[in-house]
Amino acid sequence: MKYGHGGNVFKFAQLHQIAVEDVIDYSANINPLGPSESSMGVVAEMLPMVSHYPDPNQTELLDAIERVYKMPKEHIVAGNGAAELLYAICRLPGYTGCFVPAPGFSEYRLAAETANIPVRDTFYMPRESAEGDHYFEVPYLALQTFAAKLKGQDGRIICFLGNPNNPDGTLLEREHVRVLAGMLRDANSLLVIDESFIDFVGTEPLGDNPHSLRDLIFEFDNVIVVHSLTKFYAVPGLRVGVLFAPKILQPKLKELIPTWSVNTLAQTYATLSVDDTEYVEKTKAVVCDEKSYMYTALSAIPALTVYKPSVNFMLLKINTPNKTVEQLQEYLGDSNILIRSCANYEGLDEQWFRVAIKTRESNEILVKKLQLFFS
Amino acid sequence: MKYGHGGNVFKFAQLHQIAVEDVIDYSANINPLGPSESSMGVVAEMLPMVSHYPDPNQTELLDAIERVYKMPKEHIVAGNGAAELLYAICRLPGYTGCFVPAPGFSEYRLAAETANIPVRDTFYMPRESAEGDHYFEVPYLALQTFAAKLKGQDGRIICFLGNPNNPDGTLLEREHVRVLAGMLRDANSLLVIDESFIDFVGTEPLGDNPHSLRDLIFEFDNVIVVHSLTKFYAVPGLRVGVLFAPKILQPKLKELIPTWSVNTLAQTYATLSVDDTEYVEKTKAVVCDEKSYMYTALSAIPALTVYKPSVNFMLLKINTPNKTVEQLQEYLGDSNILIRSCANYEGLDEQWFRVAIKTRESNEILVKKLQLFFS
Repeated sequence: MKYGHGGNVFKFAQLHQIAVEDVIDYSANINPLGPSESSMGVVAEMLPMVSHYPDPNQTELLDAIERVYKMPKEHIVAGNGAAELLYAICRLPGYTGCFVPAPGFSEYRLAAETANIPVRDTFYMPRESAEGDHYFEVPYLALQTFAAKLKGQDGRIICFLGNPNNPDGTLLEREHVRVLAGMLRDANSLLVIDESFIDFVGTEPLGDNPHSLRDLIFEFDNVIVVHSLTKFYAVPGLRVGVLFAPKILQPKLKELIPTWSVNTLAQTYATLSVDDTEYVEKTKAVVCDEKSYMYTALSAIPALTVYKPSVNFMLLKINTPNKTVEQLQEYLGDSNILIRSCANYEGLDEQWFRVAIKTRESNEILVKKLQLFFS
Repeated sequence: MKYGHGGNVFKFAQLHQIAVEDVIDYSANINPLGPSESSMGVVAEMLPMVSHYPDPNQTELLDAIERVYKMPKEHIVAGNGAAELLYAICRLPGYTGCFVPAPGFSEYRLAAETANIPVRDTFYMPRESAEGDHYFEVPYLALQTFAAKLKGQDGRIICFLGNPNNPDGTLLEREHVRVLAGMLRDANSLLVIDESFIDFVGTEPLGDNPHSLRDLIFEFDNVIVVHSLTKFYAVPGLRVGVLFAPKILQPKLKELIPTWSVNTLAQTYATLSVDDTEYVEKTKAVVCDEKSYMYTALSAIPALTVYKPSVNFMLLKINTPNKTVEQLQEYLGDSNILIRSCANYEGLDEQWFRVAIKTRESNEILVKKLQLFFS
């Protein structure tokens, strides 16, 4: 069992005796363009409003999410970041076990353990295609087999999957997921799909993203889709996220979230930024270009095995025994660059690391530094 | 069982077709001076920092709380407002029942029920002293008797008390509370004291407040003290609160709070504002003067029974049958004044209401309006 999160930018800044603003942070998967400027302008104007309680009904926020993501309001629950929503899901009564992707986001495990639910790993396997592409395989068959065995028994599980999964970027395949969702339903079990990075995929409007599986909540009453609003909209410091749930689960989940959970500024910012079409389109275009640039440039370094990015981050493995991620972190640290060691991800080890995808200027610096380090 | 919170300023503004800024909000018990201006100035400068994750260790915030409130860091847990901390307390395993003050803050009940803990009311009794002062009596003896009976049995309870209690403003008496804490300890039960308004009492520095019972956490390993930072520091829209717990409970409570729960701006603001001595002193002075002004002025209205305020709010009862709080709300609403009906407080009814204590200018308006309404 491994725990913990990636680079704490505050600790890093302190260690290197620099300002937080001067950290070139490749460890956090945040929109490389930063927040929507026009929305942040309104947030600045709204600052005096924090002397009132937040709208407990989150009326404007839910209206905006309903419209932009095409999901009826009675299916939405908002929270103080996706983390709070994951904790709430694990507090739904009656679940006796939980499966989390390995590697995967550490909050799934923490949320389950906090609710006293035993956790098992769903190991994703690193594979290489005939064309030499590296990817991770989601063990759909193993999960389906487990779900089939569970049917008729007392146990009820929560199965977490990332779409795409963090840190490997693997996107889910709709038909496999539908089969799994049905089998879990027959076993009174829950499927939770984390789509916190889904907005970075594709060029369609946010509500028409063909990679999203959020519409499965209408077909299956045991599927919940979690959707952070702090990655794409670049406000992890403000805290806001939503989940989409079947009508039968939405009120139960809402009840588990304390009143006034989403602060006033987070409500304001999220309401406006999901509607900032120019910002959304520009983000999608930049991430699309940059992930292609980074993939090509880093794939050319023989010492690295590079996993093709689907969104704004990519997973890499050092495949030479005489270099370690620790050495690389130290080397990049001298240039104020912070990356994410994946040593504490279940299923990975000291040879793996993850980098965010940022804008060309800093991406070029990172690429050059990596070329030099491995030369 | 009665539920719910007071005046939602957003709903009120919409109903009266005015801007939220134009509501004269006597329904929320917030520092009449508003937030610390110098601290809010820094928050405005810190806005761009929300594109980083909040400091998960809340280092600067906890340092400041430790220093100002004289409570060692290993006894502190910070949360997304006091509400999140109340929910966390109720999730400590093993409690089979819960006592909440009636009347009292509705989140105690909600937090307990969300954790599937059955709730019973601790009825505070309205009394009149020989001198004609109106006050509420805390049923220490009844609680102590219950705790004594519980000893040696399987049940374990959480007993909530407000210090002062909201909406009546009753302060706790140390010796009675010490006896109760000891008896609850012998019954493996918990005493939770909510001191969210305690900073408004007295003129001593915040860490030397003789009315606070937070030092009881050093004497009793079953006492937790909750301390909102949004009432005195006037930022309910930002969300931040702390609790003080015995060393044995602190890590358990911390584990129940999701990572990054306290957003960056709330951390920054709370860190600075607790240190703004000038603001703290001015607040204490203004509230002291105004509560005295309000008590005297409103006590002179024969149709009202007035409970002496200890902090920045006061409870009143209409003692004439031909006027109701509903009529009063409508009358004041025409002047954009929002008050808190106490009809949905357990133990009170349609004749009770609560008003905050604000600055002289608006207090004079409210007093005049009340004089007119009851004339």
